[in-house]
Amino acid sequence: MPAVTYKLIKQCKQSGARLGKLITPHGEIDTPVFMPVGTQASVKGISPEELNDVGAKIILGNTYHLFLRPGHELVREAGGLHKFMNWNGSILTDSGGFQVFSLSDLRKITEEGVYFSSHLDGAKLFLSPEKVMEIENALGADIMMAFDECAPYPSSYEYTKKSLERTTRWAERCLKAHANEKNQALFGIVQGGTFADLRKQSAREIVSLDFPGYAIGGLSVGEDTQIMYDMLEETVPELPADKARYLMGVGRPDNLVEGVIRGIDMFDCVLPTRIGRNGTALTSKGRVIVRDAKYAHDYTPIDPECDCPACRKHTKAYIRHLLNTNEILGARLMTIHNLYYFVNLMREIRASLEVGTFGRLAEDVLRNYPEMTKAEAD
Amino acid sequence: MPAVTYKLIKQCKQSGARLGKLITPHGEIDTPVFMPVGTQASVKGISPEELNDVGAKIILGNTYHLFLRPGHELVREAGGLHKFMNWNGSILTDSGGFQVFSLSDLRKITEEGVYFSSHLDGAKLFLSPEKVMEIENALGADIMMAFDECAPYPSSYEYTKKSLERTTRWAERCLKAHANEKNQALFGIVQGGTFADLRKQSAREIVSLDFPGYAIGGLSVGEDTQIMYDMLEETVPELPADKARYLMGVGRPDNLVEGVIRGIDMFDCVLPTRIGRNGTALTSKGRVIVRDAKYAHDYTPIDPECDCPACRKHTKAYIRHLLNTNEILGARLMTIHNLYYFVNLMREIRASLEVGTFGRLAEDVLRNYPEMTKAEAD
Repeated sequence: MPAVTYKLIKQCKQSGARLGKLITPHGEIDTPVFMPVGTQASVKGISPEELNDVGAKIILGNTYHLFLRPGHELVREAGGLHKFMNWNGSILTDSGGFQVFSLSDLRKITEEGVYFSSHLDGAKLFLSPEKVMEIENALGADIMMAFDECAPYPSSYEYTKKSLERTTRWAERCLKAHANEKNQALFGIVQGGTFADLRKQSAREIVSLDFPGYAIGGLSVGEDTQIMYDMLEETVPELPADKARYLMGVGRPDNLVEGVIRGIDMFDCVLPTRIGRNGTALTSKGRVIVRDAKYAHDYTPIDPECDCPACRKHTKAYIRHLLNTNEILGARLMTIHNLYYFVNLMREIRASLEVGTFGRLAEDVLRNYPEMTKAEAD
Repeated sequence: MPAVTYKLIKQCKQSGARLGKLITPHGEIDTPVFMPVGTQASVKGISPEELNDVGAKIILGNTYHLFLRPGHELVREAGGLHKFMNWNGSILTDSGGFQVFSLSDLRKITEEGVYFSSHLDGAKLFLSPEKVMEIENALGADIMMAFDECAPYPSSYEYTKKSLERTTRWAERCLKAHANEKNQALFGIVQGGTFADLRKQSAREIVSLDFPGYAIGGLSVGEDTQIMYDMLEETVPELPADKARYLMGVGRPDNLVEGVIRGIDMFDCVLPTRIGRNGTALTSKGRVIVRDAKYAHDYTPIDPECDCPACRKHTKAYIRHLLNTNEILGARLMTIHNLYYFVNLMREIRASLEVGTFGRLAEDVLRNYPEMTKAEAD
């Protein structure tokens, strides 16, 4: 039995949306679920208690960043990432692939692995499937991701095909190198760029390796949103119904709903924390740019219907003042509100799936969250 | 009856140390007390609940900064500073004098008041005793400070004398202009630089105006620490025993103890919050530079004997990692720890005054906190 299992509870009759449960060594997680991003062993600005208060059950840690600082050996010595950061919920670590492949000027890909330079000090480093497993085993997350190549967008058909096939070979090497199956589950990652047949090919290859869960990677990397949805529709039917499905790095509230409709169970994104720090709140009525001058004298909460600690205790006028004067508390309150909104949106999605009203909720969210421009999502 | 009164409970037989109580519209405060600084309607990095958790009963707000942003009229409209920032404890606002007089290149002092340029955008502004009372009345703090001139160090005898006499005239104008005696108490400020007779002259003039409390200003502005202590010894005996005595902008743990020995009841300083954010913790055993490489693998709390939320939940290795990676949570945890240390030190001082062991505690603190260099206090 793998360290993490998925239980499908109910599937929506009108869509592919799934209500389920992810069982991990650090607790059971109702799905669909959103995972706040804690890049450097901290979800920017907030404490583990606050994560708990907003209802987060699972967070993401970034292998690349933790490998650089404080180093995986130190985290191992500290008793693993849970203990190091004092978070008793579940953790998923990515593979570092996305970060390494984003350093396009600084890296060289070979069959063996990737040579790259640290973005911090230029130090020459190397990551391979075996090295990434060593790092992720040291970090000790409940869910580890296999080391994949996230091909840039756009990439040619030929490059994408070669890249996904290498990702499959790396996935096999990850499975062999994973040294803690008892406590950590290794998920495979489907690649294949924006080519329907390559997505199917990658999904079949990865699924044939029999992972306890599957991620869809290489999306939300610059392609049109509709292409992302199309690729999900090509990929998801290839994935087994009894395993969790994770759409990596996504996204906005509308993306979460569209992902759920297409059968996705897990999401992560820096969007709520990043745009929060930059002054944009996400609410049940759509975006609220708290930084805007029109809120200078607004003594009501960000969202009067929201129960988060920021909305229960503070006004837009005060939070706007904190943001304008670069007070840390402003970034904190915005982060707490946005994470609460995301976590609560997923809770509402689950409740609606249970009672059969998901269609109405999805319409609501899609109406309140029309496509955001790139600048608006920053 | 003034809005704020002081009750002397007990005076130490060996020193001038006083155990007392400050009664304000927002609660009773045991003295001696330390007031965390919340410059821009926020104690940097932490929430009002966390202030409460560390045991703070009264905080300081900076009139100059709040006048610039968000503006005192906005704070008045929000229902006052307590409501604006959602802090139900007591608040003291300074007069803005110290900040304005620090802008030495940008200001011009006249009998009427001070012309200066905003440090933010260069806007031409004017503060007078009447204007400062208007601002402080709008902010609505329990304790307001009179508008004084904080003469630079060093200043000539002649300049200091002229300046303190103007401060007395300004203090009279403040008393006349103060428009909310029912809910806010106006404290006078003694100046006089580093000249014993001028300190006495200033104290007598200010006391003759009969304020409900007295501050000693213009110290800890660059003079040797011993000079500050000497000036306290010249000034405090001139102050009435039945009013609170506040030493402005001080200081380090050793300064607090030396101030208490000389009969001071109230202190404020950015030191614990500022050096905390910069990586230095204050503990019962002295300073701990958490940023130091020697703590990289230290999985014990900042101070194993400390009960603060940072020490109960996190290790030096983790906090050091957060500081190194510029994670906001690092600054937060350090701030919480240092404020807890200061608030708790004052609690211990009060307890020791009650049972008569203050001398031993004072010795302990002075041994653990030898004179810090300017760089160390930054």
